[in-house]
Amino acid sequence: MQFISSTDGSSPGADGVTERAFRVGEVPGMFWTPTGANTGLPLVMLGHGGGESARHPGIVARARHYVSTIGVAVAAIDAPGHGERPFTEIVGVERALQTTADWRAVIDALLNEGVASGSIGYWGVSMGGVAGAFLLPEEPRISAAVLGLIGLERLEELAPRITMPLEFLLQWDDELVPHDEGLALFDAFGSVEKTLHANPGKHLEIPAFELESSARFFARHLRTTSSVG
Amino acid sequence: MQFISSTDGSSPGADGVTERAFRVGEVPGMFWTPTGANTGLPLVMLGHGGGESARHPGIVARARHYVSTIGVAVAAIDAPGHGERPFTEIVGVERALQTTADWRAVIDALLNEGVASGSIGYWGVSMGGVAGAFLLPEEPRISAAVLGLIGLERLEELAPRITMPLEFLLQWDDELVPHDEGLALFDAFGSVEKTLHANPGKHLEIPAFELESSARFFARHLRTTSSVG
Repeated sequence: MQFISSTDGSSPGADGVTERAFRVGEVPGMFWTPTGANTGLPLVMLGHGGGESARHPGIVARARHYVSTIGVAVAAIDAPGHGERPFTEIVGVERALQTTADWRAVIDALLNEGVASGSIGYWGVSMGGVAGAFLLPEEPRISAAVLGLIGLERLEELAPRITMPLEFLLQWDDELVPHDEGLALFDAFGSVEKTLHANPGKHLEIPAFELESSARFFARHLRTTSSVG
Repeated sequence: MQFISSTDGSSPGADGVTERAFRVGEVPGMFWTPTGANTGLPLVMLGHGGGESARHPGIVARARHYVSTIGVAVAAIDAPGHGERPFTEIVGVERALQTTADWRAVIDALLNEGVASGSIGYWGVSMGGVAGAFLLPEEPRISAAVLGLIGLERLEELAPRITMPLEFLLQWDDELVPHDEGLALFDAFGSVEKTLHANPGKHLEIPAFELESSARFFARHLRTTSSVG
């Protein structure tokens, strides 16, 4: 694992969050931590959406929010064909399988470095949700997840194998994923604790208050020191 | 409005919550406030379930939680035929209409007394949800509501007339209200901001974390001084 650059989280406006670019093999990523906290942190992994990357403004804002409100470390990586990674023909299931392998290598690296503890959560919606649906059954080190904006189609066999506490986000007027498909996926998840949050609006119109809700979900399920939950 | 009894919220174990029994005409109720705060508070009204009352342990615990975490006043009244009220033959729609009249009289009284401000929320599930579905379209002074454990049946005409911000709770394995009925009701609400929280489990098995969620919902929508939201 190679850290490439770092911003000083104690500078004005940095809100006490240190941001670092990293690389694990060929996989570029970003890593955010509370400034001054360098070991044994709970980790939240962010899976970005289609056309986005680890440096997408929405990902960066979410990462900073989690770090500053619940005191976790946050990591994001570029999916195949996204961000700093070269163009690739692989899409769909093949891309999700590659992303799973990438994430597992990054988890190994972060645990080896000692910056992350074994308490790990995953957040991803849309393409990041599909990536999560493939990753979660294969990765027992992830103990809580927020997924969303995906449906049952093509995930029939994976869904029952996802068994950790889950928060699932669905947009009632989603133009890409009919809400009945999302409801069917929620029904199919194997988790004993799963909670569905459905809101009006289109695919990309998840309300801002769901950011806070997901932070509290991770605070509840990861070993954090937060008082938010 | 007649206050009948009061507990001293500053005594050990009272958590800074003052509890008072009251009566408005023939309607008995309970009123909870932060000890020492006696005027101009946001108000959350709690509609109890079938067979319960304003003194039901679940209602009392919820009231105390809201008062102590988000600094609101909380009121609950006995529905017709419940708690301290005499047996009555009226049920269903007739009961809901009477409950609406009762609540409106209690709101008038609390505003007249000056203890409540004009910022008012309503919480009710199951029978308390039905009561809310009748009350909300008639009572523009209520600006946010949490409803749940009810379905579209018999509420087809009321649902589109409910337009304030809404959090709606649905139990996926509800043995009394099929979840499809709950989803249809969620769809039918007129609110621009409405959020569905669905969880596995039967009618009475709403997870404890939804209590916290509803407190934050009221903190977000009522004029409270809380730092929770």
